[in-house]
Amino acid sequence: MKNEECIKVIPLGGLGEIGKNITAFEYEDEIIVIDCGISFPDEEMYGVDLVIPDITYLKSNAEKVKGIFLTHGHEDHIGALPYILKQLNVPVYGTKLTLGIVENKLKEHNILSDCELHNVNAGDIIELKNFKIEFIRVTHSIADSCAIAIHSPLGVILHTGDFKIDFTPIDGLVMDLERISNLGKEGVMLLMADSTNVEREGHTISEKAIGKTLTRIISNAAGRVIVATFASNIHRMQQIADASVMNDRKIVFSGRSMENISKVAMDLGYLHIPEEYIIRMDDMQNYNNKNITIITTGSQGEPMAGLARIAFSTHRKITIEPEDLYIISASPIPGNEKLISRVINELFKKGAEVIYEDLEEVHVSGHAYQEELKLIHALVHPKYFMPVHGEYRHIRQHAKLAQGLGMQGENIFTMETGQILEITVDEAKIAGKVHTGAVFVDGLGVGDVGSIVLRDRKHLAEDGMLTIVVTLERQSYSIIAGPDIITRGFIYAKESDELINEVKEIVRTELNKCLDNKVIEWYVLKSNMKKSVERYLYKKTNRRPTIFPIIMEI
Amino acid sequence: MKNEECIKVIPLGGLGEIGKNITAFEYEDEIIVIDCGISFPDEEMYGVDLVIPDITYLKSNAEKVKGIFLTHGHEDHIGALPYILKQLNVPVYGTKLTLGIVENKLKEHNILSDCELHNVNAGDIIELKNFKIEFIRVTHSIADSCAIAIHSPLGVILHTGDFKIDFTPIDGLVMDLERISNLGKEGVMLLMADSTNVEREGHTISEKAIGKTLTRIISNAAGRVIVATFASNIHRMQQIADASVMNDRKIVFSGRSMENISKVAMDLGYLHIPEEYIIRMDDMQNYNNKNITIITTGSQGEPMAGLARIAFSTHRKITIEPEDLYIISASPIPGNEKLISRVINELFKKGAEVIYEDLEEVHVSGHAYQEELKLIHALVHPKYFMPVHGEYRHIRQHAKLAQGLGMQGENIFTMETGQILEITVDEAKIAGKVHTGAVFVDGLGVGDVGSIVLRDRKHLAEDGMLTIVVTLERQSYSIIAGPDIITRGFIYAKESDELINEVKEIVRTELNKCLDNKVIEWYVLKSNMKKSVERYLYKKTNRRPTIFPIIMEI
Repeated sequence: MKNEECIKVIPLGGLGEIGKNITAFEYEDEIIVIDCGISFPDEEMYGVDLVIPDITYLKSNAEKVKGIFLTHGHEDHIGALPYILKQLNVPVYGTKLTLGIVENKLKEHNILSDCELHNVNAGDIIELKNFKIEFIRVTHSIADSCAIAIHSPLGVILHTGDFKIDFTPIDGLVMDLERISNLGKEGVMLLMADSTNVEREGHTISEKAIGKTLTRIISNAAGRVIVATFASNIHRMQQIADASVMNDRKIVFSGRSMENISKVAMDLGYLHIPEEYIIRMDDMQNYNNKNITIITTGSQGEPMAGLARIAFSTHRKITIEPEDLYIISASPIPGNEKLISRVINELFKKGAEVIYEDLEEVHVSGHAYQEELKLIHALVHPKYFMPVHGEYRHIRQHAKLAQGLGMQGENIFTMETGQILEITVDEAKIAGKVHTGAVFVDGLGVGDVGSIVLRDRKHLAEDGMLTIVVTLERQSYSIIAGPDIITRGFIYAKESDELINEVKEIVRTELNKCLDNKVIEWYVLKSNMKKSVERYLYKKTNRRPTIFPIIMEI
Repeated sequence: MKNEECIKVIPLGGLGEIGKNITAFEYEDEIIVIDCGISFPDEEMYGVDLVIPDITYLKSNAEKVKGIFLTHGHEDHIGALPYILKQLNVPVYGTKLTLGIVENKLKEHNILSDCELHNVNAGDIIELKNFKIEFIRVTHSIADSCAIAIHSPLGVILHTGDFKIDFTPIDGLVMDLERISNLGKEGVMLLMADSTNVEREGHTISEKAIGKTLTRIISNAAGRVIVATFASNIHRMQQIADASVMNDRKIVFSGRSMENISKVAMDLGYLHIPEEYIIRMDDMQNYNNKNITIITTGSQGEPMAGLARIAFSTHRKITIEPEDLYIISASPIPGNEKLISRVINELFKKGAEVIYEDLEEVHVSGHAYQEELKLIHALVHPKYFMPVHGEYRHIRQHAKLAQGLGMQGENIFTMETGQILEITVDEAKIAGKVHTGAVFVDGLGVGDVGSIVLRDRKHLAEDGMLTIVVTLERQSYSIIAGPDIITRGFIYAKESDELINEVKEIVRTELNKCLDNKVIEWYVLKSNMKKSVERYLYKKTNRRPTIFPIIMEI
């Protein structure tokens, strides 16, 4: 029946969390996917390198999936591609810069030649059987960003991707508000819009505004200037480079992602620096310090990135020099405040000058504030609205903002990852849930570290461990070697002699009690040893190290 | 020689860090100490409960130490007292509320009767042989706060403690700017001033200003109001209570520190709530929701505190109810942003309303902003200046602020914990360093967890552990039991069978290689086993679990 047809919108990540953005759109036998990002582990995810979405739903509908469409080249929108394409190899569509960054990643994973990448321009429309996918230019903190309009048999879905409204972008390519306005006029069924900055009043500042500050600071610097910023913020790089060239400073890129992305951006024509102004790190010694600008990674204080290595004197090639001026041209992502502060403190301690957001306007956000969001809502005035990109608090506030503009609450869907929004001609409703989740990448392993492993790591991290080993002879019911005790992360060795001897005594007593009664079931022996030792240690130290009783039997 | 006499100022904590404030002042045979605080562990200090200062210097000069003088009752100024007084039992001086809170702590540690506490009022002067210690009223986010002026034979040292300049404090007791101004007129040798908010422009808002917001919000609430705030902020409590009483709401205190401090504050006359308005948690059921206000701990999102327990449904007595309104009347302390966000998200998810700083003015800071600091500098115009309370970045910015007001750089001392500022009649200079450090409190242990234990915990947390046990018979040079393998925090058990079998095989091969050559030195066997297994696991997983080879010998 025609009036039963429906479109399903399924966020497989990115709702109720920052990052891991990926959404599926399903109509009959077609599924398309917007974005495929990673998120970063939180502090409870011990040892995890990064987190990717669980795409069980896509894999079990593999024949339907027609492609992944990318809004822009940030990690939280493209970072999971190398892992996901290994599980589900489908065509990928994106703008030139976005795909340039993706190619680098696929090369590192040795799968570039197996993947199908399609270059699109803002304004292009990809036609599938049921869906037409239109790329619409937006402004954001990375060049070549797009919103995506999905033209479906039931109506238009507009997904903003990440955006801000910058009327004076560095590349002159303003957001295509005209097209968005036209879509609004024709009628948009569902708007999905960026909620990241919904708690901030007013309007973001244009990227161009901080160019003046950067130029002034760089012009006045007596020695080297070292700027830490996001490697993907090519417009920021351009402004730093322009100010440097103006002051006859050569430019050095430091950090793997900074080197990679600046190269891609220059090759593809997104970053314009006169060739003679770019020098290799090893060639810095040929120039005066006042003729050098270093653009480096590490603006989040990441311990392994360029800036922290310089600060803590572990950088292989850059050491702090007198008159160095450090600029941190970035905001802390929530959770990174302490890391950044540690780097700033260290730089100050070593006598360097440091300029950061609290002191000067050296960063602007790439995500729309309240007034920008209101403009989009006013232009699009959709039938239904789903706030996306953000923790639950942001999604909830964005829903309120839409209500404040006159939308009815029942037409707004504050959803969680995995929930299905089902839209028919007559109505939209949340209809069930698909399997989703977070897959942990740790070293070479994808998904082999799960909640049990993490729980164990947490426990080990908090109180350490204590291993007890004894060898028993079954025939004689006697201990013939041990108990030996090994501990780590529990207590200072030199202070623990008495404690350890006491533990050995407790183990001997417990074992002999069992052995005297001819009990030699391992699980009984182990459990008794463990319980007695646990009880003793908790009483003595108020700690609960993980206890491993090991019995060898001969 | 008279002109050789000097006073030493030695920060034993609190410089280049947030918290753990403690400073020694030494003149001839007298030492006095200002404050004795804790700091909270950072994310690398796995399992550590709190951090106290290392007072080796004070202990080795025990006979000189005449007392500890407290500026106010915050944890980072008094929290280490129970631990320090056990090591060095000296008289403690503080205002009534400060000592009220201290008494509670000493009681919990069962040492109250052994300690000598002296109650002082703002304006009081304690006379020692060489020092006179004067308490001067300041305003801060806890009542009964004082600056301390030390009158020494060489001149006056003014230590501000923590302060803001609130012209309309809730208790009407304004900061004694007149006394500070008089001291300035008479001449202050050294100013030590709070640097916490030196990066913020302008002037703090008065505590009174948010009373209006709280009253409006509480008056409009349809159901229960649950406010999370700092337990020590008695003026905030007073304003919440006043707004509640005005709306005929009974008041419940939730959380141990909230119950303790509110009781102390009421007993001592710092918090005024009509008795009939205070009810026990168990009596809430006798009232309508619109007649209840709960004031709870957990404003920093701490997982074990009241608010988080309510949000995650683990509170024993309070569950979320329809129309509940949650107010987080606090700012995140740097590092706690994610914890708080997690609680806010959870409350929203469960359908509650939440109001926090980003949405409404429900919190003000207790530390002076730039314009307040400038006023103090202008009034005091000291000979020397030492910025205190803050990370290195704050101390550095505070030095710049003083220079901006006309002080010479050589009269400003940006110091690190442990450095000695030596002041004579003629000059002041940094002269050496004493031993200082951070002592970790973990469970019942004080100082038995050190950097080695923490490094092991970190390693265990990141990659987990793998224990290998074998029993060897010395006579026959043969393996008679094992190898057995135990892992935790490393890899999913079900996915690791093959890996574990391979590890066993490697161990067997390595051991037999040695045993065939009649090598039975444990360290050789262990080291060979460990290296081979490490190499194999890293190749296979890119991880480095801690490996424990254990050999039992019979």
